[in-house]
Amino acid sequence: MNLSNKQEAKPAADWLQSVRWNSADNWLDLLDQRLLPADIVYLELTTSEQVWEAIKQLAVRGAPAIGITAAYGVYLGVRGVSGSLEELLDEAVKQCDYLATSRPTAVNLFWALERMKQRATGLAAAGGEPEAMKLALLDEAKLIQSEDEETCRLIGEHALALFEDGMGVLTHCNAGGLATARYGTALAPMYLAQERGIHLKVYADETRPVLQGARLTAFELQQAGVDVTLICDNMAGVVMSKGWVQAVIVGTDRVAANGDVANKIGTYSVAVLAKAHGIPFYVACPMSTIDLNTASGDDIPIEERHEDEITQGFGKRTAPIGVKVFNPAFDITPNEYVTAIITEKGIIRAPYPENLKQLFL
Amino acid sequence: MNLSNKQEAKPAADWLQSVRWNSADNWLDLLDQRLLPADIVYLELTTSEQVWEAIKQLAVRGAPAIGITAAYGVYLGVRGVSGSLEELLDEAVKQCDYLATSRPTAVNLFWALERMKQRATGLAAAGGEPEAMKLALLDEAKLIQSEDEETCRLIGEHALALFEDGMGVLTHCNAGGLATARYGTALAPMYLAQERGIHLKVYADETRPVLQGARLTAFELQQAGVDVTLICDNMAGVVMSKGWVQAVIVGTDRVAANGDVANKIGTYSVAVLAKAHGIPFYVACPMSTIDLNTASGDDIPIEERHEDEITQGFGKRTAPIGVKVFNPAFDITPNEYVTAIITEKGIIRAPYPENLKQLFL
Repeated sequence: MNLSNKQEAKPAADWLQSVRWNSADNWLDLLDQRLLPADIVYLELTTSEQVWEAIKQLAVRGAPAIGITAAYGVYLGVRGVSGSLEELLDEAVKQCDYLATSRPTAVNLFWALERMKQRATGLAAAGGEPEAMKLALLDEAKLIQSEDEETCRLIGEHALALFEDGMGVLTHCNAGGLATARYGTALAPMYLAQERGIHLKVYADETRPVLQGARLTAFELQQAGVDVTLICDNMAGVVMSKGWVQAVIVGTDRVAANGDVANKIGTYSVAVLAKAHGIPFYVACPMSTIDLNTASGDDIPIEERHEDEITQGFGKRTAPIGVKVFNPAFDITPNEYVTAIITEKGIIRAPYPENLKQLFL
Repeated sequence: MNLSNKQEAKPAADWLQSVRWNSADNWLDLLDQRLLPADIVYLELTTSEQVWEAIKQLAVRGAPAIGITAAYGVYLGVRGVSGSLEELLDEAVKQCDYLATSRPTAVNLFWALERMKQRATGLAAAGGEPEAMKLALLDEAKLIQSEDEETCRLIGEHALALFEDGMGVLTHCNAGGLATARYGTALAPMYLAQERGIHLKVYADETRPVLQGARLTAFELQQAGVDVTLICDNMAGVVMSKGWVQAVIVGTDRVAANGDVANKIGTYSVAVLAKAHGIPFYVACPMSTIDLNTASGDDIPIEERHEDEITQGFGKRTAPIGVKVFNPAFDITPNEYVTAIITEKGIIRAPYPENLKQLFL
């Protein structure tokens, strides 16, 4: 028993997993993405409060990875509860509601927590031992994670059909393996291309203020041997005007029913620039990111974050004290800029209101 | 004599001068703009080599300020020379050619050095004492500086006619008082508006990689009490889409004969975004920035700078070691994106090839 646990505690994969359930120690190993690329450090999370804090503080980011992390957080939040099935269900619901307050924009968070809630409800209704119900909730979190890996692989397959050997592809922020269980969404076709000897030349926007492009996308693509060039966000236009980019592909935190896309701040500018240069703009995401309950981008809450991210984001003050700052974490790209949305079910094009609805039938 | 010198050594102005001839000590006080906004430190430059280094290393930046600094550098380079007028002229020409190698893009550098060369040639031809010729070269540098202040004031007057009380104005990089003798070019109308009680709401792009917008523009406008909000470069599109911006105004390092504009990297993206949102895009510059000898933007050399500016711009590594980087310091905005060019002589609009030529008749 001990031996087998120790084996499981070893790195379980030859790629860098952002979320890793540690069966040996019975806690969640969470890669602290804030420290990348300099340091690879896993946080050891044992309570749902720690999970809430890790999501809030961006130790984990990327819409699918946030959802997976929160799902494990539900288990961590209920495993210490003693009482009946009903009391356990009550606590599970409470934990889901609590974890849902960690960040406002990414719909996968709410999707994963809703799924955990449903599962808890079903388990409580079915009866049985409270301890068995707790383990079943852990299994559900693991299932969300393994399904996400397969989802990402499928997104990569569909997206790769849009690319050709030798193409230049620009991406913004990090919708890579670190943001998901594996492969990523926007980066999935790049990994699959690499496996198959198809050469893509990737341009990674550094993505101010938190530099996910520089710290994460450039890092994980470089680790995998993908040809990646790092640029500042304000260089995207020039790189396009030089004819170096044949496609843009990004992830998303939420797709509204009309095809409007919420994603990391700066995505909208990239989409406008792509259109001005006649370059297709693709959005890659799992079905769980599409929210038919949100009519349009206007209905997506946009998180505003602390001014320090801009005024002293590099550990050193780079703006005058007291200056006014506008720091939205996301923006909305209207559907007219979106050439196609790529999910595990395939490629969707306009008209989005009809075609997104179709997907769920 | 000592007393009067000491008085001159005091701060000569109630605004922050980037270039200041120090008559007391007979050297050039140069504000080290790399340390702003945290520290206000003046370098004391006594040789042309120090001037070359200060320009190269960006202690001074801003096309007009670079030209003024280089002009003083010519005097510092020749003042120790003993010999005939001809030998002095030879050395002045050598110093001009040397200082011209400090940076490649800003045409004001070459313009100011050419003017110093012409002045030296004229002085040598007129005869007289070598020492008098040296002082005349110093006077010429001072004249270039005082003319620049008046030029900037006039640019501000003309530009202000394009703005109205309550407008939102976005700017990129720093074309302010720090980049010139005073007032700046793109920021001149903001200072004049402030003096006259006209309220402009300014959005300053932080301007990666060197953050001239955060460190300099936000700083000098805040000091002057102008309403300024700092944003990351990738937020310009969102701010425009919200209807918060009614005009964009930027400076330039060189305007080609056809109206193509070289300016800080990211300017082109801003211009494309402005056009997509129906917002006028203005370029403010002195006549000395217009180079009729450069046919189009294709003929303007674009300086590429060290990757460290992107990978560890503020003392902390924010990108993986060894990652490929593209780091052009400038970009070209084609004339079709330029709504108007504002100089000390007034406002010029398309067709630029004809109208720019007219200016010099």
